Amino acid sequence: MYDGLKGFRDFYPGEMSARREVIDTLEETARRYGFREVGTPAMERTRMYVDKSGEEIVEELYAFEDRGDREVSLTPELTPTVARMVVARQGALARPIKWFSTRPFWRYEQVQQGRFREFYQTNVDIFGSAEPEADAEILSFAAGALTALGLTGDDFEFRVSHRDILGGLLESLDGDVDVEAAIRAVDKSEKIDDEAYHDLLVEAGLDPAEAEAVNDVLAADDLDELVAFAGTDRVESAVENLQAVLAAAEDFGAGDYCEVSLSTARGLDYYTGVVFECFDSTGEVSRSVFGGGRYDDLIESFGGEPTPAVGVAPGLAPLSLLCQRAGVWPEEATTTDYYVLTVGDTRAEAAEITRRLRELGHVVETDLTTRGFGDQLSYADGIDAETVVVVGEQDLADDAVTVKDMESGNQTQVPLSEFPPESGRPTYDDYA
Amino acid sequence: MYDGLKGFRDFYPGEMSARREVIDTLEETARRYGFREVGTPAMERTRMYVDKSGEEIVEELYAFEDRGDREVSLTPELTPTVARMVVARQGALARPIKWFSTRPFWRYEQVQQGRFREFYQTNVDIFGSAEPEADAEILSFAAGALTALGLTGDDFEFRVSHRDILGGLLESLDGDVDVEAAIRAVDKSEKIDDEAYHDLLVEAGLDPAEAEAVNDVLAADDLDELVAFAGTDRVESAVENLQAVLAAAEDFGAGDYCEVSLSTARGLDYYTGVVFECFDSTGEVSRSVFGGGRYDDLIESFGGEPTPAVGVAPGLAPLSLLCQRAGVWPEEATTTDYYVLTVGDTRAEAAEITRRLRELGHVVETDLTTRGFGDQLSYADGIDAETVVVVGEQDLADDAVTVKDMESGNQTQVPLSEFPPESGRPTYDDYA
Repeated sequence: MYDGLKGFRDFYPGEMSARREVIDTLEETARRYGFREVGTPAMERTRMYVDKSGEEIVEELYAFEDRGDREVSLTPELTPTVARMVVARQGALARPIKWFSTRPFWRYEQVQQGRFREFYQTNVDIFGSAEPEADAEILSFAAGALTALGLTGDDFEFRVSHRDILGGLLESLDGDVDVEAAIRAVDKSEKIDDEAYHDLLVEAGLDPAEAEAVNDVLAADDLDELVAFAGTDRVESAVENLQAVLAAAEDFGAGDYCEVSLSTARGLDYYTGVVFECFDSTGEVSRSVFGGGRYDDLIESFGGEPTPAVGVAPGLAPLSLLCQRAGVWPEEATTTDYYVLTVGDTRAEAAEITRRLRELGHVVETDLTTRGFGDQLSYADGIDAETVVVVGEQDLADDAVTVKDMESGNQTQVPLSEFPPESGRPTYDDYA
Repeated sequence: MYDGLKGFRDFYPGEMSARREVIDTLEETARRYGFREVGTPAMERTRMYVDKSGEEIVEELYAFEDRGDREVSLTPELTPTVARMVVARQGALARPIKWFSTRPFWRYEQVQQGRFREFYQTNVDIFGSAEPEADAEILSFAAGALTALGLTGDDFEFRVSHRDILGGLLESLDGDVDVEAAIRAVDKSEKIDDEAYHDLLVEAGLDPAEAEAVNDVLAADDLDELVAFAGTDRVESAVENLQAVLAAAEDFGAGDYCEVSLSTARGLDYYTGVVFECFDSTGEVSRSVFGGGRYDDLIESFGGEPTPAVGVAPGLAPLSLLCQRAGVWPEEATTTDYYVLTVGDTRAEAAEITRRLRELGHVVETDLTTRGFGDQLSYADGIDAETVVVVGEQDLADDAVTVKDMESGNQTQVPLSEFPPESGRPTYDDYA
C-alpha cells in the first residue's frame, strides 16, 4: 500500500463535488465579468521566479534540473506565467486583457490548517489599464464571486490600502529607517502583542516616539490625518488614487465590502498601487482569506512594454474555511437522478431506458455487476439515487416499469409509453 | 523576455475556449453516466511507478528528490493514483466505484504532432465489477462522449480485442517464443512494412511459417478461426469474454462503433482483459486517438483486496486532431453578449446596467480605461460583442440608452424602463 505525499491531497467524490461547485461559481462569475480563461503550464524556468522574487524564493519551490539540464520549477503562483504570456503576444492582444484560470500551484512550505503544498487558486487579472476602474472591477469581481457563493457583507470585508501609503509614511520619517523591515513589522502587527510590535518598529530604525505616532496614525485609518502626518507628495497621491478606486468600487457595487485599512501592505511583494485583503468579518478565520492588488511594473521587468496590471487570486482552501464558518460550503455529497434496476434478463430494455434518460441530461446509473434486487437497491441508496426504475421481466410483460421513490419507499407501475419521458425529470410523485 | 519550456503549452483565450468546450462535453457525458469527479495530486512517490512499470519508466518521468529527501515524480498517468485511492478507502467505498477527472500529466518524451510533455486527459474508470457490462459501460461512455462532440460512426472506430488473445495465441506456438517481443512486433505492424514485421516476429522466436500463419489469423479478425488455430483454453475463454463484452456493448448502444481487431494489444501494459483503441476511420490521424481496457490485477498489486477494474482515458491533444479532421473542433473564439459603452460622465449608470446584465447571467464588459467612443467601439468589436449598449449623457437625459447591433451597425434608442431587461438577452432586433 502506498501513501500520498505530505501536503498533497486526494479529493474523493463527496468533497470534490463541493469544491467543484465553488470553483464553478468563481469561474461563472469571472466569465460574466468578461474574463477569458487561459491554460497555463505547471512548470517554468526557475530563473523567472528568482528574477522576480530573489534567490531565497528557491527554498520554497519544487525546483529541479530536468533531463535536458534545464533549471525548472513547479509554478508556485500564476502571475509570472501570465506576465510571460502577455509579453509573448503583446502586439496582438486587445487591451485591457482580462484573463482567469483555476489550477493547482506548489510550494514547499509548512503544512497547516488551510495551507498545503499543493493548493488551488482562481487567478483573475486585468492587464493594460492604470485607471481606478480596473482596480474596482477586480474588487467587484471578488465581491460578486463571494456573494454568489452565498456570503454576505456580514461575512467578509476587503481591507484596502495603497502600497505607497505605508512605504511613503515610513519614508517621510526623519531617521534612518529600514522601510522593508518596518513594513514587515506592520504586516505582523495583528499576530504579535503591542510591545513586540513596538520593539520591531524601533529595531527598524524608528525612535520610540515615532513608532508610537506611526502606530496611532495607522490605527486611525483616517486618510486626511495620514496625509497631514506624512506631508509628502508620494503619500498624498497614493491617498488620491485609493480614494478614486474606492469611488469606482462604489459605482461598481463593491463599496459596501471595502474599508480603508492603512496597515494592509501585502508583504514585500511586487505590488505598486492599491492592495487589498479579504478577511472573515467575524475574525474566526484569523488569517487573510485571499488578497490582490496592482502590479504595474512586472510586465516591463519581464521585457514587455510598460503595462499596468491588477489582479486577485482566491485560494480554495482558505475560502473553504470562510464558507464553512459562514455555513455556505456546499453539501459534500453526490447526487443521482435515476438508478435503473434490472431483474432477470432485462439488460437490453434497461440499457435502452438508461440511454434515453441520459440523453435528457440526467445522472443515471444501471447495473454493471449482474447482482440481485436487494444488492442493487442498496447500491442505489448508497449513491443517493432519487428514483429507482425497476425493469423487471414481469414489468416488461405488462409493458411497464416500476418507479420507486427512494426517500419514501413508495412505488408505482408506469406504462412504457410514459417512461422514459420525452422531457423533464419525472419522479414517483408525477405518476402516483 | 522569458520563454516557456519545450513540450509545455500556453493556451490563449480563443484556443482555450475550444478546449474548455470539449472538456465540458467529456465531463458532462461522464456525469450523466454516473461517474463522479475526484481530485488528485500532481506528484506521487516515484516508487509507485517503478513498482508498476519497472525501473526503465524513470527515464520518462519528471522525477526528483524533494526537500524532504523523498523520491517523487510528477504523475505521468492517473491509474496508479486512483488505484492508491481505492486501496486507501477500500472498506468505505460502495461498488462499483465510478470515477472521472480531467487534468494534466507529464512525461519527458519526444515532442511531436499531438504529443507534448504536458498533456491533458479525462480519465474514466470503474472499479469493482468483473462483468462484461462494466467494459461495455466504458465503451458506451467513450462512444457517447465522441458523438456528443459531433463525431459519428463514419469518423471513428473502436478496435477491440482481449489481452489474452494475442498472448494466448503466441503462447500456443510450439517453439521458444519471446511473447513480449512478439507482442511488440504486432504493436508496430501498422507502422512498418510487411517484411520488417515478418523479420521482427522471426527474431521473437517464431519460425517463418508460424510467423506467416500468425499474421494471417490476426489479419482475418475471425474469432472462430482464431480459436481453432490456437486450440487453447486461454484463447477460447478470452474470445468468450470478448464476445460477451461486444454483446453488452451492443445493448449499451456502442455496438456500431466496435470492431474486432485481433492485433490490438495496448503494448505491454498492465491490461488483463478486453482492450481497445479508438482510431480515426479515415486514417488521416494515423495513430491511436486513445485507448482503454481492463486491468484486474493492479489494485491487488497495490496492496488492496482483489478488485477488477476497467477504464479509458481520452487525451485532449490527439482528440483535437480527430475533431479537427472531422470538422467538429469548436470555433476558437471568445464571445461577449454586451459591451456597455460610456460617453461622458456616465460611469455610475453604466456600472449599474452592467451589474444588472451580469446578474442575468450574461457575459458583459464595460469601460475600464476611460477612453473615447471610437476606441471603446473598436475594443467591443475585438471581443466579438454581439450588442453594444451606449450609455451617453444625452441618452440618459432622454431616460434611455442606445442599443447597437455590432454585426449590422444598426442602432436604436431604448427607454431605461425597457433596458436592462427583467430577463432574457434582448438585442437590437427586439427593439427595432
